[in-house]
Amino acid sequence: MTEKLEELNISRRASRMRASEIRELLKLLDRPGMISFAGGIPDPALFNQAAYREAYAEALSDDGRSLQYSTTEGHPQLRRWIADYMRERGVACDESHILITHGSQQALDLIGKLLIDPGSEVITLAPTYLGALQSFSAYEPEYYPVRFQNGVAETNVTSARVLYLVPDFANPTGVTLSLEDRKAALELARRTDSVIVEDAAYTELRFEGERVPLIAALDIAEAGSIDESRTLFCGTFSKTLAPGLRVGWICGPTALIQKLTLIKQASDLHTSTINQDVTYRVASKHFNETVEKALVVYKSRREAMLRALDAYAPEGMSWSTPSGGLFVWVTLPAQLDAARMLEIAVERNFAFVPGGAFYPDGSGNNHLRLSYSLLPDDLIDQGIKGLCDLVREQLA
Amino acid sequence: MTEKLEELNISRRASRMRASEIRELLKLLDRPGMISFAGGIPDPALFNQAAYREAYAEALSDDGRSLQYSTTEGHPQLRRWIADYMRERGVACDESHILITHGSQQALDLIGKLLIDPGSEVITLAPTYLGALQSFSAYEPEYYPVRFQNGVAETNVTSARVLYLVPDFANPTGVTLSLEDRKAALELARRTDSVIVEDAAYTELRFEGERVPLIAALDIAEAGSIDESRTLFCGTFSKTLAPGLRVGWICGPTALIQKLTLIKQASDLHTSTINQDVTYRVASKHFNETVEKALVVYKSRREAMLRALDAYAPEGMSWSTPSGGLFVWVTLPAQLDAARMLEIAVERNFAFVPGGAFYPDGSGNNHLRLSYSLLPDDLIDQGIKGLCDLVREQLA
Repeated sequence: MTEKLEELNISRRASRMRASEIRELLKLLDRPGMISFAGGIPDPALFNQAAYREAYAEALSDDGRSLQYSTTEGHPQLRRWIADYMRERGVACDESHILITHGSQQALDLIGKLLIDPGSEVITLAPTYLGALQSFSAYEPEYYPVRFQNGVAETNVTSARVLYLVPDFANPTGVTLSLEDRKAALELARRTDSVIVEDAAYTELRFEGERVPLIAALDIAEAGSIDESRTLFCGTFSKTLAPGLRVGWICGPTALIQKLTLIKQASDLHTSTINQDVTYRVASKHFNETVEKALVVYKSRREAMLRALDAYAPEGMSWSTPSGGLFVWVTLPAQLDAARMLEIAVERNFAFVPGGAFYPDGSGNNHLRLSYSLLPDDLIDQGIKGLCDLVREQLA
Repeated sequence: MTEKLEELNISRRASRMRASEIRELLKLLDRPGMISFAGGIPDPALFNQAAYREAYAEALSDDGRSLQYSTTEGHPQLRRWIADYMRERGVACDESHILITHGSQQALDLIGKLLIDPGSEVITLAPTYLGALQSFSAYEPEYYPVRFQNGVAETNVTSARVLYLVPDFANPTGVTLSLEDRKAALELARRTDSVIVEDAAYTELRFEGERVPLIAALDIAEAGSIDESRTLFCGTFSKTLAPGLRVGWICGPTALIQKLTLIKQASDLHTSTINQDVTYRVASKHFNETVEKALVVYKSRREAMLRALDAYAPEGMSWSTPSGGLFVWVTLPAQLDAARMLEIAVERNFAFVPGGAFYPDGSGNNHLRLSYSLLPDDLIDQGIKGLCDLVREQLA
């Protein structure tokens, strides 16, 4: 029976889904002594456990409402807090423009379900976030790459449904789009009549320099109002407060938010009532202070990683210098294969994500992604030395 | 822009999704003085808040793990607890056959994504659970009705992808499938080569009589092992412990669970880590005692409702007599329209769900669903008297 099911009765979209390497890699994190640069995972030492303990206790001192079903749109006070947050970042909106999701991963899935039919065009950077490719691929789009060069968007597609971008400290490259490139993205979206999906997972993790305006803010400024704009902003508390509650959001034009709400209702009714209530309590009291503490730690680890790369990297190896976020993107000489190198790395007790996972077309094998978020400086130094030794051997 | 998006760029599946009446109805619950028989919602007075307070405090006394990302399959101890629970109910399985979901609504969505292509045949009772129709409809199936009569399944479809059933105290009818009908369902699934989706949302809420074996258990007994079976059992803690955490599960053959895990990963990475941990803690200490308390309350309310119907109903009105669950299903003379009656009912401060919502083909307008879960006996009496008066007026 099961064999037959696998052969015959699985939907076309399910037959396309493949196990992600990330998932397998996450399992390595638990191995004793493993120096893992693989996960884009926050350091649990930065979670404000005391604030969560207090917030859950408060949420459970009421009449049982936090354990009950709730509306699909989300917790009213949390939606208002998020609307305030969005306005502070230049996005003129109110709570009617906010839908709460089970993390920004669900935001991407709901948006794919809303906008993508088989064969629909989706424009992305290559490389881009693997999880977005996984979400969208369930709806069978065709991917088209775009490159931004000095305020010009280079792509060969003339019409599209979705333009997906991680503008700040991108996963996997750590690169931030300039103001000119964001304007070019907006122009490209207008020209191709596509909806921009602005994945802002890392936006708050800026170590230095000025914020670049959000694409959603630029869009609204030009369009006149959020309801005339074409950007769906995907936010999350996973990289600021904690990921284990699965609370994120979509901010966008009312017409799209209403349709996404219907889709969310059919997908899982609503996001956990108590986790929304608790997120509101923790965010309203501790958001800025929690982010500031995280910035100090991640900035120091980024510096440790860049210092180690400077010290140990052989000729022909280059890397990005992120001004925020969790990732450094490494480019190796074209003949090297990062996926094969990972097998050796794991034997030597360190790990990274091979770059190929982040390319819609499966290219990019001479790249790899390093995260510095979880490791103390000395292990970063040791792991990067191991990586650079391995590259040197491969080049010999 | 937004107008154009609505006209042109929405996916085919999204264009089919419509606002549910249930959702609008839920908003009525908050109106002061409203006697609502509408929601299938547990009584929050039955939630064990003290146990949840203790469990959240315990979950937050560790090293931050409950606030961190976790694996897509779910919390290991919770999966083991559920596997034990399933075995106690005759389903020979282990934790590798369990995938944790954001409630059983997400289970239905993931299964739809796995099994349904546009035009795929889905067999259901008519009427059936509205939320299942919403989940599946996103994947554009064709629905075929089935009727069970004394161990014979009557349907005109010869091949199908899915046979969806709520065998115990069904939503919306409150009716339980007999052992003979369950065997007929299994035979129908084999004959049509379909996967049975056994939605067990209400299974634990039996007030009297013997449990009827789960379809999953019958399937495994005949097939020889769960991996040779064709049933996906969807369970939830929403009707036993509390719905606000959004924790449910799918139990089924490994090959399907592995594919569903990939789909879940692309949909939202994983179910809330802390809510899984807390559900494990509360379930392992308090499951039976919590269910037993709920049974006493719901049984008494069912009796109040049946007593009031017996006392006030006019000639020509009939209803189901559920031996568990939350619902009584009312059949009115064919010329009455429950959706129109609801408008009058709301003016008179009582509410129910018109039956048409539960039929894939939009028929069933002379039915309505009543839930007794939220109201004390005197308000049940008062509301049923109001309903019966309204029916009498409509018949005059």
